[in-house]
Amino acid sequence: MRTVDWDETNNALMLIDQRVLPHEFRILHYDDYREVAEAIRSMVVRGAPAIGATAAFGLALAAQQSGAKSLEELRRDLNAAAELLKATRPTAVNLSWALDRTLSVVSEFDGSVDELRAKVLEEACKIADEDVTINQRMAQQGATLIDDGDVIVHHCNTGSLATVEWGTALGVIRMAHEQGKKIHVLVDETRPRLQGARLTAWELQQYHIPFDIITDNAAGYFLSKGQAHKVLFGADRIAANGDVANKIGTYMLALAAADNQVPVYAVAPTSTIDLRLEHGGLIPIEERDPNEVLNLQIQGKMVTPPGACARNPAFDITPSRLITAIVTENGIAFPPYSVHLRKAVEGNLG
Amino acid sequence: MRTVDWDETNNALMLIDQRVLPHEFRILHYDDYREVAEAIRSMVVRGAPAIGATAAFGLALAAQQSGAKSLEELRRDLNAAAELLKATRPTAVNLSWALDRTLSVVSEFDGSVDELRAKVLEEACKIADEDVTINQRMAQQGATLIDDGDVIVHHCNTGSLATVEWGTALGVIRMAHEQGKKIHVLVDETRPRLQGARLTAWELQQYHIPFDIITDNAAGYFLSKGQAHKVLFGADRIAANGDVANKIGTYMLALAAADNQVPVYAVAPTSTIDLRLEHGGLIPIEERDPNEVLNLQIQGKMVTPPGACARNPAFDITPSRLITAIVTENGIAFPPYSVHLRKAVEGNLG
Repeated sequence: MRTVDWDETNNALMLIDQRVLPHEFRILHYDDYREVAEAIRSMVVRGAPAIGATAAFGLALAAQQSGAKSLEELRRDLNAAAELLKATRPTAVNLSWALDRTLSVVSEFDGSVDELRAKVLEEACKIADEDVTINQRMAQQGATLIDDGDVIVHHCNTGSLATVEWGTALGVIRMAHEQGKKIHVLVDETRPRLQGARLTAWELQQYHIPFDIITDNAAGYFLSKGQAHKVLFGADRIAANGDVANKIGTYMLALAAADNQVPVYAVAPTSTIDLRLEHGGLIPIEERDPNEVLNLQIQGKMVTPPGACARNPAFDITPSRLITAIVTENGIAFPPYSVHLRKAVEGNLG
Repeated sequence: MRTVDWDETNNALMLIDQRVLPHEFRILHYDDYREVAEAIRSMVVRGAPAIGATAAFGLALAAQQSGAKSLEELRRDLNAAAELLKATRPTAVNLSWALDRTLSVVSEFDGSVDELRAKVLEEACKIADEDVTINQRMAQQGATLIDDGDVIVHHCNTGSLATVEWGTALGVIRMAHEQGKKIHVLVDETRPRLQGARLTAWELQQYHIPFDIITDNAAGYFLSKGQAHKVLFGADRIAANGDVANKIGTYMLALAAADNQVPVYAVAPTSTIDLRLEHGGLIPIEERDPNEVLNLQIQGKMVTPPGACARNPAFDITPSRLITAIVTENGIAFPPYSVHLRKAVEGNLG
């Protein structure tokens, strides 16, 4: 099933609860957009493309929930709901991209209130459907960069669970595997939420792709020993100059790859590219609850001493100079990114 | 109390059990050198200087345990015990340094069998005592590099627990703090064994030095934001050219510091310098049990899916080009390390 999907029978949003994977597979149903906002905030659903689609469905729920009698009233309710949904997580631009896209349909709409309610749901479904085909196009593009026998370091989770279906960077790996290339993945565990150790490892098991989990700080060892040939990750926001905001640790991983002349590929749909921002320093970085760092246990026992404090930035910026290419659904952008990312967004990368 | 100490009443070695800290403070007693070897292997005791002193006390126990009637027999038993102790952990050179130093006393000794037994213990006690004074000299040297107001990223544990007492890199931080400099430490949690989150955080609490725990992969974020001013760590072995073997993750941390022009200091006694090895590529790197990576829990639940595999290299090599200076008890060595490390070992760094 899809990570983010619409339950037509019950007019509800369905999300796979990613907090309890891989030990439990639980589907949650939502009929209140405020609960959808909380689901994004608490990471029931995560991954830039997945939270974009989720937010659009959140708007569809807000349209259903609204008692508006006029288009004007419904537009006002939808704008308020979009504000709430947008405020949940600041870094991934796909969230505001999906909301803005839906709101622009709303503002241009001419018809009855109920027709607009249907229209918002239709747009959310379209965003979700498009996400799947876009991912598959990215995967086709990206797979041309992967060689038979590659060992690939992968950060965070960028698979089906990070998108509506299929995935970005992990989608590329999956496509290369389906094309018959022999691939081995070194799965960064991705502290603190461990999306690699929990979600990517679980997905790779489903796809029968061989892997080893490694601690994030060990990637440099394998890169320096010549034991890894590519580095792949997704993106939460890409500035016009090619700087990439992505899960915390991406920057240090890219540094280690660059220091060993190993190619670094970011894989993201053009909806992740934010041409309004000149460089990565302008991307807001979310800092999350320190307990995500402190709540580790080993053999049932807490690790950190009582009273310890922590800092927990959830993303970092990888400068474009460390990135070999950015794979989009419209083709592969190489430097200079200030030229080629714009072309990718416009669909004429050639 | 000391991390590694001799119990004169019971003729036994005492070790603080570092596997159960910070939630339990447990002292273990050893009267069998084979159990000491197992304690080193299973990381009851860890940290290059601490395992050096522990191994020397292990030889003292082997001398006690030996039923040798002649010097020749006792020498043979001690050589065999040293082999066993040396094989426990391959990377830190302090282990073989302490054993070789003790064995050279053994081979030069002329006297009775019981006098040699006493002599071995005396040498182990000397190594332990010297470790404390050496650490304090290093701390004095290193503290001159620390400025009032510094935020310091620190990797692994290099405090009292990594040595007999006082510490190497953490000893420098402690000395600067005692000199009245305002210091804040960003404590790398140091996956997989979490020596930072468990041991360094606990030690810093004792010394009343403010800190935040961070995931290892977050150091680059703070360095790139200008929020960290120095990077400090210890060493397990330093090659003649200044390449440093240290806890896994040190290389990626040093890369992130260098990329942001933040000074990187390794702090280690001259017993950690291995002039026989031309460069870091010749240092053997221990790969430990994958379960150290896989056995994480959050809220009582396993994180990784059943059947997942892991790789677990325990150390990496930081090339000397990334290291600003190496602090020893005989002074601070700056590049060119091939000249200055030899001088440091010879005690005439000037």
